[in-house]
Amino acid sequence: MRVVRFTPSPDAGLGNDPLFGILEDDDQITIISGDPIYHGIQKTAARVELAKVRLLAPVIPRSKIVCVGKNYADHAAEMGSEVPTEPIIFLKPNTSVIGPGDTIVWPAMAPTIDYEAELAIVIGRVCKEVPKERVKDVIFGYTMANDVTTRELQKRDGQWTRAKSFDTFCPLGPWIETEFVPGTQRISLTVNGEIKQDASISQMMFGIEDIVHFVTQVMTLLPGDVIITGTPAGIGPLPEKSTVTVSIEGLGELTNKVSARL
Amino acid sequence: MRVVRFTPSPDAGLGNDPLFGILEDDDQITIISGDPIYHGIQKTAARVELAKVRLLAPVIPRSKIVCVGKNYADHAAEMGSEVPTEPIIFLKPNTSVIGPGDTIVWPAMAPTIDYEAELAIVIGRVCKEVPKERVKDVIFGYTMANDVTTRELQKRDGQWTRAKSFDTFCPLGPWIETEFVPGTQRISLTVNGEIKQDASISQMMFGIEDIVHFVTQVMTLLPGDVIITGTPAGIGPLPEKSTVTVSIEGLGELTNKVSARL
Repeated sequence: MRVVRFTPSPDAGLGNDPLFGILEDDDQITIISGDPIYHGIQKTAARVELAKVRLLAPVIPRSKIVCVGKNYADHAAEMGSEVPTEPIIFLKPNTSVIGPGDTIVWPAMAPTIDYEAELAIVIGRVCKEVPKERVKDVIFGYTMANDVTTRELQKRDGQWTRAKSFDTFCPLGPWIETEFVPGTQRISLTVNGEIKQDASISQMMFGIEDIVHFVTQVMTLLPGDVIITGTPAGIGPLPEKSTVTVSIEGLGELTNKVSARL
Repeated sequence: MRVVRFTPSPDAGLGNDPLFGILEDDDQITIISGDPIYHGIQKTAARVELAKVRLLAPVIPRSKIVCVGKNYADHAAEMGSEVPTEPIIFLKPNTSVIGPGDTIVWPAMAPTIDYEAELAIVIGRVCKEVPKERVKDVIFGYTMANDVTTRELQKRDGQWTRAKSFDTFCPLGPWIETEFVPGTQRISLTVNGEIKQDASISQMMFGIEDIVHFVTQVMTLLPGDVIITGTPAGIGPLPEKSTVTVSIEGLGELTNKVSARL
């Protein structure tokens, strides 16, 4: 199922608060009651057309976005690095999250801003020290992320936090697919329609089981936490006012505009 | 005022949920209604003795704990680093927070664990791009943190996230002092009663105004977010089953036990 979070249009008679729903037949949303990560998927009788809503990030992590660095060998190579023997993790703040269609705002501090297409895991339950064979049980579903990064600040600071934590630097969406099974799906990214990244998620050095097992040896994960799993080769800068789209087979498209430089 | 968060003892007739209060006369808590960071300080008529409650971390950040690295010249020197020309920031997850008296759990992944005494800023309102002269307006109060760190993983990973993000690695407390004015107060830390760190918070390279101004050029801060401001020289390992106490003049004492190594 494709779980969406959205704001209805003012004339829909559905109030002003964000709602959750299931996207069906590609253009109809069946509204569900409450947040499905906490309350399960309880469909109501209400439906609304996809064209009449504004999609939002399908989840705002209450606690954290855990990110895995250098998880595709060809990207580690283009960054001049070895592939690490254990996952390298860092955090993005939930204040960096935006939804599909939202604008990535180019901050004054950033000489350039880069795109990074990533597969995102949405955690469904409180968990710690999850054995690899139980990882499936703690995952609510999958979505996509663009791990927007200021390469100059990443290099200058050494720590990647500032470079990756600006407001709007974590587009998530367009929905959570609860039935996605990671395999050999293509992951790709275009800028103004031109292909920049194109790989298979099977090229990840640490797979989903490895990552969740590793991260939960360090920290407790909470419902709605998100883990983004690294980007393949082909990184590069986003021009001012460009349009960037992340795609993974089975997960749709995540498109965002880039602002002019502030 | 000293804002505490606590669990009442079962026989106090105050229910089982955490409550907020104001610590008065060093041993009496006046209970306040709701979370003071959101609802202001509204005292009720109910009081309870400090001795009859279990103090909790005075705040659980909804969004993030922003940390400043290498902010005391003598600590940067002992780490073999220059003092940076801009603050180096990183994040700790809210799942690492524990309260006064709680146990720091030594994880299996960690060969050693180090203490780091720090002054902590508690943010009181949503803010972005705060001018230095307005920083005072966005601060709810101050508390203390112990930025527990696995030095080996910090060095091995390059990124500091794993080394500093284990559950229980962010003791906060014992309370939030809303009237604290940072100046030349001493900051110190003892392990089993022996002084290990002893400095003045005036030795910070980037002061409170610099830090909040800088961080809010990167990210929006939310009520209850915490910024920890770096540690002075004298870092070192915590022995198994030791007792560690952070003190800053005017902010009380934050004491935690260390577990045996898992």
